[in-house]
Amino acid sequence: MSDPIESELTSLIENSPYLSWLGLEIVSIELDKIHVRARWRSDWVANPTIGQTQGGILAALVDFAADFSLFTRVRRPLPTIDLRIDYHRMAKKGSLLAEGSVVKYGSRISVAEARVTTEDGELVASGRGTFLTQDLG
Amino acid sequence: MSDPIESELTSLIENSPYLSWLGLEIVSIELDKIHVRARWRSDWVANPTIGQTQGGILAALVDFAADFSLFTRVRRPLPTIDLRIDYHRMAKKGSLLAEGSVVKYGSRISVAEARVTTEDGELVASGRGTFLTQDLG
Amino acid sequence: MSDPIESELTSLIENSPYLSWLGLEIVSIELDKIHVRARWRSDWVANPTIGQTQGGILAALVDFAADFSLFTRVRRPLPTIDLRIDYHRMAKKGSLLAEGSVVKYGSRISVAEARVTTEDGELVASGRGTFLTQDLG
Amino acid sequence: MSDPIESELTSLIENSPYLSWLGLEIVSIELDKIHVRARWRSDWVANPTIGQTQGGILAALVDFAADFSLFTRVRRPLPTIDLRIDYHRMAKKGSLLAEGSVVKYGSRISVAEARVTTEDGELVASGRGTFLTQDLG
Repeated sequence: MSDPIESELTSLIENSPYLSWLGLEIVSIELDKIHVRARWRSDWVANPTIGQTQGGILAALVDFAADFSLFTRVRRPLPTIDLRIDYHRMAKKGSLLAEGSVVKYGSRISVAEARVTTEDGELVASGRGTFLTQDLG
Repeated sequence: MSDPIESELTSLIENSPYLSWLGLEIVSIELDKIHVRARWRSDWVANPTIGQTQGGILAALVDFAADFSLFTRVRRPLPTIDLRIDYHRMAKKGSLLAEGSVVKYGSRISVAEARVTTEDGELVASGRGTFLTQDLG
Repeated sequence: MSDPIESELTSLIENSPYLSWLGLEIVSIELDKIHVRARWRSDWVANPTIGQTQGGILAALVDFAADFSLFTRVRRPLPTIDLRIDYHRMAKKGSLLAEGSVVKYGSRISVAEARVTTEDGELVASGRGTFLTQDLG
Repeated sequence: MSDPIESELTSLIENSPYLSWLGLEIVSIELDKIHVRARWRSDWVANPTIGQTQGGILAALVDFAADFSLFTRVRRPLPTIDLRIDYHRMAKKGSLLAEGSVVKYGSRISVAEARVTTEDGELVASGRGTFLTQDLG
C-alpha cells in the first residue's frame, strides 16, 4: 500500500457508503488502467430462482472502473456524463472483476471503457462512459 | 390492487432481493407505461460530503422502468441487451421517481426509455434500453 | 420564410456540402423542436438487392435533428459529444422525416433525442445525443 | 486477393452504392478484426469554413468496421440493432482509417467495437454496436 494513488482510492471507497456496499477492493492500478474486485452479496440478486446479479450492479461496476481509470490521471472522481452498458451473459452468484481503461483523455471531456468478468474470466458485461474532465470549481 | 398486472409486478419486486433493496413501489401502470417510486436509503450515497446518489442506482432505475414498461405487454421481465443512461444533474438525498415507456415493441427486440426525477419533478437522469422480447424457452 | 431561425438554418444547410447531399429541408421549427425531411437518393442504398438505406444515413439524421432542436435555443450547431442510435426496422427506398427534441438543456452539456420515420409514419430509427453547449471561443 | 473473405468483402463494397460512395477499401483482415480506409470526398464536409467531416460519416465507419469484424466469422453483414459513437476530436479534411474488432460473439446477439483515426493515427471517433447474429431466414 505504498502507492499513493492506491491509498487515495482505498480511502475514497471506504468513505463511500455505496462503494463500500459494492464490496470493492483494488487488485491493481497503473496509468490509465484499474482492476478491481467486487465481493458478491445476496442483495445483488435480481431473481432468487435464477440467482443472477441485477444489471444495475454491472452498470455501477462499468461506471466505477471506467471513471477510476481516469483517476490515475486526475486524482479525483469525475462526474459521469453518460454511460453505455452491453450485457453479454447472465452473471451468476459470485464476486466479479472489473477492468477499466482510458479510451481518450481530454481536457474537457474524457471517454473510458470497462469489462466485467466472473472470477473465472467469463465476460459478463462491458461498456463505456463519458466523463467531465474539467474541474467545475 | 385488483389489477392483475400490478399484483404480478408487486410480487416480482417483493421476491427480488435487489428490487426490494431498491425500495420500489408501483405508482401507476398502463399499457406501455409504468411509474414507480424508489425509497431513498443511505447505502445509495456515492460520497458522504456531497451526499449524491451513485450513478449505478440511477442506471438500475432506468433499466427497471424501461424493462417493466414492456412487462405490460409480455407479462415477464425481459433480458436487457444494452442500456444507455444520461446523467443530467446530481441526485441529492431523497426518494426518486422513474417513468418508463415503450419506444418500439418488436417480436424479437424491443426498445424502451425512462426518465428519473426527484419527488419535486427535477429530471436527474434519462435513458433507454434494448430488450430481448423473444422467449428463450 | 419570415422566421429568422428558419432562414438561418436553411442557409446553414445550403452552405454545408454534407447537409445538402442529405437533401434536408425544414418542415417546421418551434422552441426545442425541429422537424425535417431528407430527400432519398440512390447513394443511400446499403445493398441493391434489398434496397435499404444504410445505417450511417439514419445516424446522420438522428444527429442533425437532435442537434438542431437545440439550435432553436443557441442559434449555432453544437459539437456532438456522443450519439446513440436504435435501428427499429429496415428503411426501404424513400425520403425520410426526422423529428428532434430537447431532453435537457444545460449550460455546459445538453441532451436531445430524435425519431426517424418514413413518409408513411413508420418508425425506422430513434436515438439521442449529448452535445457541448458551452461556447469554446 | 487470394483470401476468399477479402474477395467477398470487396465485392460486397463494390455492389453497395453507399459503401462505394464512402470510398472503402480493405487494408487487412484477420479473424475478429478488420482494418479499412475510406477515401475523403468533399461531400463529407459539414461546414465549409471549418472543413470537418460530418459525424454521420464517422458513425457509418464505426458501424461498418464493427459489423465487418463479425463478417470474418459469419460471412454476411449482420443487421445493426444499435450503435454508440463517441466523437473525440474534429476530423479535418483527409481520408480516414477504421479498425473494427469483436467484443463478444454470441449465437443470437454480438457486440463489436471500432476506432476511427486519421492517416496520421489521431483518434477521431470510437464506438460500439450490437448486431443480430441469428439468421432471420
